[in-house]
Amino acid sequence: MTSLLELPAGELLDRFASPDPTPGGGSAAAFSGGLGAALVAMVCAMPKTRTGAPEERARLDAALAWAREAGDRLRALVQEDARAYDAVVAAYRLAKRPDAEKAARKAAIAAALARATDVPLATAEACLVVLKAAQEAVAHGNPNAVSDARTGGVLGFAGLVGAAENVRINAALPWNAWMRLSRKAAAGRRLSVSFRFRQFRGGYRPRRTPGSKPQTSG
Amino acid sequence: MTSLLELPAGELLDRFASPDPTPGGGSAAAFSGGLGAALVAMVCAMPKTRTGAPEERARLDAALAWAREAGDRLRALVQEDARAYDAVVAAYRLAKRPDAEKAARKAAIAAALARATDVPLATAEACLVVLKAAQEAVAHGNPNAVSDARTGGVLGFAGLVGAAENVRINAALPWNAWMRLSRKAAAGRRLSVSFRFRQFRGGYRPRRTPGSKPQTSG
Repeated sequence: MTSLLELPAGELLDRFASPDPTPGGGSAAAFSGGLGAALVAMVCAMPKTRTGAPEERARLDAALAWAREAGDRLRALVQEDARAYDAVVAAYRLAKRPDAEKAARKAAIAAALARATDVPLATAEACLVVLKAAQEAVAHGNPNAVSDARTGGVLGFAGLVGAAENVRINAALPWNAWMRLSRKAAAGRRLSVSFRFRQFRGGYRPRRTPGSKPQTSG
Repeated sequence: MTSLLELPAGELLDRFASPDPTPGGGSAAAFSGGLGAALVAMVCAMPKTRTGAPEERARLDAALAWAREAGDRLRALVQEDARAYDAVVAAYRLAKRPDAEKAARKAAIAAALARATDVPLATAEACLVVLKAAQEAVAHGNPNAVSDARTGGVLGFAGLVGAAENVRINAALPWNAWMRLSRKAAAGRRLSVSFRFRQFRGGYRPRRTPGSKPQTSG
C-alpha cells in the first residue's frame, strides 16, 4: 500500500473527501499537527530572534527540537490512524460472519477500538508539543515571521481538538485517561486563547519578557 | 514550476519546514481549510443523516455544495498565496537595486503587498464557508461521523485564524476591510466556541432544531 504521505497532496485531499472510512478525522488531525510543526520549525530555525538576546537562541533551539520530534511523530501518526481505523472496520465485518463466536467478535472489536483510541491520544500529545513550541516561536522568534508561528500554533490546536474528537468517539474512556486528555485539552485551550485574543482584540504587542519594565497605572 | 498540490504530501510538509520564504503560513492556512472542506464533504455526502428527516437531506446537500466550492477555492489559494508572497520578496529585492527609482520601488512593494493581503482575505472567506458547512454536518449528518465533521470544523477555524494572521502582517488594513475581517473572525469564533464547548465540557448533545421543543425552566 502506498503510504498516505507519498500521495500527491491534492490526491490526499481527494482521499479525505472520499466516502471510504479512511483516511478520516484522526489522520487529518495528525496532518494538521504535522503542518503546524513544519511552520514552527521554520521560524525556530531562522537566524534572527525577536531581540537578539542569547537566551532567545537557546529557547528557540529547544523549541526547534520539540517541533521536529513532534512533527516526525505526527507524520507517522497520519498513517497509523488510518491503519487503526481500518482494523476497526475489519473487526466489525468479522463480527457479522455467522460462524464468529460471540465472545471472540466482542474481543476483536474491543481490541481494535482500544488501538483506535491510543493512536489519536498520541496525536493529541504530539500536537500539544507543537503548541508549546509555537508559543516559544511567537514569543522569541523573528517578528517578521510571527504570522507563520501563530498559524503553526493554531494548526497544532486544530490537531489537538481533532484528535480529542477521535478519542472520544472511539472509546468510552477509562476515567484516568479522560482526565489526562482533559488536562491536555485545557492546556491547549489556554495557549490558543492567548493566540486568538491578541489576534482579534489588540495589536501585536511583543510578549513581555521577565527583564522588561512592568506597566504601572495611576 | 510544479504546483504545491502535485508534490507528495510528505515533501509538501518539508517545503513548509524549509527556510525558503514560501510556502508559508498563508498557504498552510489555505491547505488547512481545504483539508477541513474535504472532511466536511465526506460527512455531508453520506446517505445517512442524524434523524433521517427529509429536510436534513436538503440541508446536507446544500452544505456539501458549499464545502466542495470552498474546498476548490482553497486548493487554488494554496498556490496563489505562495505566488503572491514570492512577488513581495521580488519587489523588496528590486527595491535594493541602486538604479531603482524611489517612487517605482515603493509602488512595486505596495502593489505586491496588496495582492499578498487579498489572497489570505479570500482564504479567510472560504474558511468561514467551511465552518458553516461543518456546523450543518455536525448538526444534521451521520452521528457516527461526528468526529470527522467536528475535525473538519476546527481545521476550517485554524485556516481562518491563520489567514487573518497573514492579512494582518502583510497590510496596514483600510478600516472597512479590517471591520469586514473582524466580523468574519467573530462569526468563526462563535462557531468554534460552540464546537469546543461541547467537546470539553459536556456531552455530544444534538443541536436543537427549529421544530424541537424549547426548554423551559421553573
